Amino acid sequence: MRPLKIVEAVPNISEGRRENVVQEIAAAFGSVPGVVLLDVSSDASHNRTVLTAVGEPDALVDAALALYASALDHIDLRTHRGEHPRLGAVDVFPFVPIENVDMQECVALARRVGHEVATRLNIPVFLYEEAALDPARTDLAAIRKGEFEGLAAKLRDPAWKPDFGPKAPHPSAGATVIGARVPLIAFNVNLGTDRLDVAKAIAKSVRHSSGGLRFVKALGIDLAEKKQVQVSMNLTDYRKTPIFRAFELVRLEAERYGVPVVGSEVVGLVPAAALFDSADHFLRLIDFEREQVLEDRVRKALESRA
Amino acid sequence: MRPLKIVEAVPNISEGRRENVVQEIAAAFGSVPGVVLLDVSSDASHNRTVLTAVGEPDALVDAALALYASALDHIDLRTHRGEHPRLGAVDVFPFVPIENVDMQECVALARRVGHEVATRLNIPVFLYEEAALDPARTDLAAIRKGEFEGLAAKLRDPAWKPDFGPKAPHPSAGATVIGARVPLIAFNVNLGTDRLDVAKAIAKSVRHSSGGLRFVKALGIDLAEKKQVQVSMNLTDYRKTPIFRAFELVRLEAERYGVPVVGSEVVGLVPAAALFDSADHFLRLIDFEREQVLEDRVRKALESRA
Repeated sequence: MRPLKIVEAVPNISEGRRENVVQEIAAAFGSVPGVVLLDVSSDASHNRTVLTAVGEPDALVDAALALYASALDHIDLRTHRGEHPRLGAVDVFPFVPIENVDMQECVALARRVGHEVATRLNIPVFLYEEAALDPARTDLAAIRKGEFEGLAAKLRDPAWKPDFGPKAPHPSAGATVIGARVPLIAFNVNLGTDRLDVAKAIAKSVRHSSGGLRFVKALGIDLAEKKQVQVSMNLTDYRKTPIFRAFELVRLEAERYGVPVVGSEVVGLVPAAALFDSADHFLRLIDFEREQVLEDRVRKALESRA
Repeated sequence: MRPLKIVEAVPNISEGRRENVVQEIAAAFGSVPGVVLLDVSSDASHNRTVLTAVGEPDALVDAALALYASALDHIDLRTHRGEHPRLGAVDVFPFVPIENVDMQECVALARRVGHEVATRLNIPVFLYEEAALDPARTDLAAIRKGEFEGLAAKLRDPAWKPDFGPKAPHPSAGATVIGARVPLIAFNVNLGTDRLDVAKAIAKSVRHSSGGLRFVKALGIDLAEKKQVQVSMNLTDYRKTPIFRAFELVRLEAERYGVPVVGSEVVGLVPAAALFDSADHFLRLIDFEREQVLEDRVRKALESRA
């Protein structure tokens, strides 16, 4: 059998209140053969839904176009209200490499989908993160600044000419941001104290925005029912800022306050490589190769057989 | 697609010198459809070859029977000499659960192959490790004691009535030992000293036979070219004696001699779960579940789809 190329697609749509609309858009997205819808999470106050699906690149192109068409039918940004910033009906659409596929293939996939969406639906498309053609568009927040309401003015600025599509917003669907990125890891470290100020100080010291590690976002959070506090992190590129380094830095900073680390947690999914890297670090492994993982080796042998 | 049930089969045959014979037996074993031969390692001084293959249980039954038939054609224990102890032409044949299959299925597989080998080829079969029907036969060394040359006398002892097959050795092929076990992990820890006595003392303190951890075999070894020494271990059940515990115990014992751990190595293959367990331990993860591993989750979703 040919090895499956597995890509994850995580579109964020600007609808989190009308359940029937979310279901209809999710059905359009998930019913393409070869695409498996893993999760649909709506947030009513954000009025936004995150869909997660996996599949091979070609199947995901079809699924993406079906999602955009359905969102165009059902979402009108002119009447959309919600707490989360947004630029379009399908607000952000990242592709994430999972297996037998590299970042470059996901970048190509994002650009292909961007071109199709612009051409078929007349929606302006910005390419972001690893798929960005313009380094100023790497950061999603910069692209989304001004939101839907400021979009017409933004698109008149030559610096914000879209990567594909018209230089004016789609009347109801706004614009969309498509790209490729590594999987995010939500990783929290719990501290054996009820002092929220300690968690906040540590979060500040480890996060990128205030001088910490390059690919860490962090907040101090109260876990009142446990009488603990937590450094809650998003690791936005585990290949460059690995889990173990974030963990060890939090532990070291906590020592300065005489506070112990009582545990940590991965929220949701984590790539196998991120855990292998942690084992490799703490065991001080020499020259460890991914192909030494028994199941990977076996799968590769079975796939190359036919 | 249906999830593949993947089992590893690691037969040890009593031939490590005649390359053409090894190749012929390996071809018989590996040419069954659905079976993939991963490795063939011969040792001339042992006059023994270890073959490693993976496949689904039914395919491995056919492959095992082909291997036994071919070994019977080519190996005669009456003229076999080698340093490694052996009881038969196919000396030992363990099945190892890898994916979507549990130990009980491997035990059933071992017994099924044992029954067929005894019935079709008239070879006495002992079941060992997890497949043992008699607790005295869990340990391979006890079964093999006396070797081929003492086999006829051993089989006359009612305590050593074989689990399947005749109460007398096969004239040329002797007997065979079939069973099921967890994957072995070869794990070495390197110490920043050239004192071999320190490595030997630590090996003695961590290995089961002299009072250490239940599923650890260990030796102290000189790495002269690196001016280091090594505690070289076999972890025979990583589920019960995990890698991280063996590592940490070696590290602690080395401290007593003022010796640092400068690295470790996994030789050959290691199950993913053994590395996940180490990451879990050192990161102090709370309630981590295997299904949080992204690739596993994706694979399961894709498999359950069709």
